[in-house]
Amino acid sequence: MTTKSMGTITVDETVRQSILSRLSGYRYTHTLGCERAARQLALRFGYDPERAGFAALLHDITKRLSKEEQLYLCEKYDIIPCDIERREWKMLHGRTAAAIAATEYYADAEICEAIACHTTGRANMTLLDKIIYLADYIEDTRDFDGVERARELAQIDLDQTLLYCFNSSLTDLIARNKLIHADTVAARNWIIGKR
Amino acid sequence: MTTKSMGTITVDETVRQSILSRLSGYRYTHTLGCERAARQLALRFGYDPERAGFAALLHDITKRLSKEEQLYLCEKYDIIPCDIERREWKMLHGRTAAAIAATEYYADAEICEAIACHTTGRANMTLLDKIIYLADYIEDTRDFDGVERARELAQIDLDQTLLYCFNSSLTDLIARNKLIHADTVAARNWIIGKR
Repeated sequence: MTTKSMGTITVDETVRQSILSRLSGYRYTHTLGCERAARQLALRFGYDPERAGFAALLHDITKRLSKEEQLYLCEKYDIIPCDIERREWKMLHGRTAAAIAATEYYADAEICEAIACHTTGRANMTLLDKIIYLADYIEDTRDFDGVERARELAQIDLDQTLLYCFNSSLTDLIARNKLIHADTVAARNWIIGKR
Repeated sequence: MTTKSMGTITVDETVRQSILSRLSGYRYTHTLGCERAARQLALRFGYDPERAGFAALLHDITKRLSKEEQLYLCEKYDIIPCDIERREWKMLHGRTAAAIAATEYYADAEICEAIACHTTGRANMTLLDKIIYLADYIEDTRDFDGVERARELAQIDLDQTLLYCFNSSLTDLIARNKLIHADTVAARNWIIGKR
């Protein structure tokens, strides 16, 4: 990555390939889809597509890791898992990916924060947070109930799409008696409060 | 109220009538139903029915109040509303009722806490918290989708019933794009974590 000016970046193809080489199977395809979706959303909603694509490339970089490896990275990078992340340790991959993005790929704070919250959302989401959360949700390889509606909404309004996605995710977690991350509820309340 | 021994109380009929005289219309009928349900749940699950009935009598004592009156009581009793309570001020009635229960009816901390969290739940709910939350939900005058199932479950297992009620309430809030209180999510995560 080369920083051209504050906030603008060019992702070197060597760096891009280095990131992609760490991903395999479906995660490789999903990440390419996410990169494409992030760039499209960025262009549509007025964000730098290079930065959005870079964040998308990195968002799942640690997802393949085991519980022990996730916890090792938490220890190494001073990430303190909350209660739900201790139980649902796979949720940690956003935060550990952000740490790797910062230390190995020199991603800046805005990019790292978007990577860190891409599975949960959070209150006061930045434009990039929204783009990465939604790119991950709607990219072309995704195939689940409601994804088409999310794709349609994402042509029009990011906040409306986020609310739809949060509602769908929460409804799914409730139906399966799964834990709910406080950040997702905070994100959803924040979006509703803004309307 | 006369305190007989630590934790055991007798609710004087004069006190009971004083509380009931502050309730009117449906709230009066609902409170009597809640008192009955709380006593039944207490007997079923090994809690003092007098204490449960007393908490139930008091749980909605401030629900009739206006936004200005709720905020006045918050000021008076050092209750700091959280973000969602500032927006959805009716949620404050549990906390203001707990303050009135303590100051005007000498209810002890355990009873006041159960009153305070009766609309949201909370992590680490006490047996009385559970009884009051559920009595409010399932009492005889309640008539909504799922209440029969909640009543059936409440014959068997309090935690299973709570999870069912939290799931139903959250699903309803999501469908109506309403704010979700963090305490409800914390309560539900806690119940799931215990299983």
